[in-house]
Amino acid sequence: MPVKLEQLSIRTSAREEIVNITDQVQRVVAAAGIRAGMACVYSPHTTAAITIQESADPDVRADILDHLRQLVPARGGYRHREGNADAHIKAALLGASQAVPVRDGRLLLGTWQAVFFCELDGPRGRHVLVALHGE
Amino acid sequence: MPVKLEQLSIRTSAREEIVNITDQVQRVVAAAGIRAGMACVYSPHTTAAITIQESADPDVRADILDHLRQLVPARGGYRHREGNADAHIKAALLGASQAVPVRDGRLLLGTWQAVFFCELDGPRGRHVLVALHGE
Amino acid sequence: MPVKLEQLSIRTSAREEIVNITDQVQRVVAAAGIRAGMACVYSPHTTAAITIQESADPDVRADILDHLRQLVPARGGYRHREGNADAHIKAALLGASQAVPVRDGRLLLGTWQAVFFCELDGPRGRHVLVALHGE
Repeated sequence: MPVKLEQLSIRTSAREEIVNITDQVQRVVAAAGIRAGMACVYSPHTTAAITIQESADPDVRADILDHLRQLVPARGGYRHREGNADAHIKAALLGASQAVPVRDGRLLLGTWQAVFFCELDGPRGRHVLVALHGE
Repeated sequence: MPVKLEQLSIRTSAREEIVNITDQVQRVVAAAGIRAGMACVYSPHTTAAITIQESADPDVRADILDHLRQLVPARGGYRHREGNADAHIKAALLGASQAVPVRDGRLLLGTWQAVFFCELDGPRGRHVLVALHGE
Repeated sequence: MPVKLEQLSIRTSAREEIVNITDQVQRVVAAAGIRAGMACVYSPHTTAAITIQESADPDVRADILDHLRQLVPARGGYRHREGNADAHIKAALLGASQAVPVRDGRLLLGTWQAVFFCELDGPRGRHVLVALHGE
């Protein structure tokens, strides 16, 4: 049973940005030769997150970022002195990882789904871990 | 080590609805004969989600849907033109999957927990994937 | 391939409290002797959650709890009669579990990350399940 851990590198280009990383994750999955299993896509950062959402219309990602800014304003009277408390709160709401089932070396994403890295306090160089389990 | 992937079918009956799928997931877990492991319950949709919450009082599910409507109004000046941007945002907040530990062929849910499919842009025919790992 | 399920016990001391459980989870991971795999940290409760966030500055946890109280007020005209509907909604937003990749018996947390149990309706005695997979 292959268990594989791979690290991807990402360069974000804005304070907030939702980056499609499906192709990079899919390459790791294909190389691992897993017939049936699961991929866990993990952000080791506290001001970033992973989400699975629609890729066809980029407006969906813009709406998610816009609405998160309404729910968690950048300036909100927070105690944390580094000026990025909003990014930590948004990251907690979205989650540090997402799991995707795998079959025959392919992520079993739905028709409209893609895997996204959510930058919430960039731009920065970032990492994503992909942990694969299966047989 | 059994690794199993199964697909469940669901028919939702309202635009927003939280459907208890615990029995269907439990049947897959029991049939797989896993002594110790984990079940990943995954929605391949971008306007639906999976959550683990209380089943005893249906008011809890109603409160969750009501409050999500307050946080993410259906009409919110979104860019996405399909009229369901709110459903995408809610799905991102709840998450596309949930993991549950398994022992002796049983989901190790807490006393008050059940597994729910969250329809956020129905009614529709929907699918849920259950990925099982363990021994 | 070791698969291991362990249960941790926690005593919370306030209605809302974010408790660092990284050391307890790390001890389970080290004892299991997993070279490469994943840990799933699971709350079997419906008014508690697991999150991965910054540990260095405790203000980050205070900001998360404060802001969740703004988004989901304790008194919000909810239907659920037990007076803790807000805790259920917050738990659904944060999620019942978090997965962390493991290498050479160590949780692969980022530099600033720790694993937290989020008490949302305490104080109570609580449990956390840790499900480990790998080789």
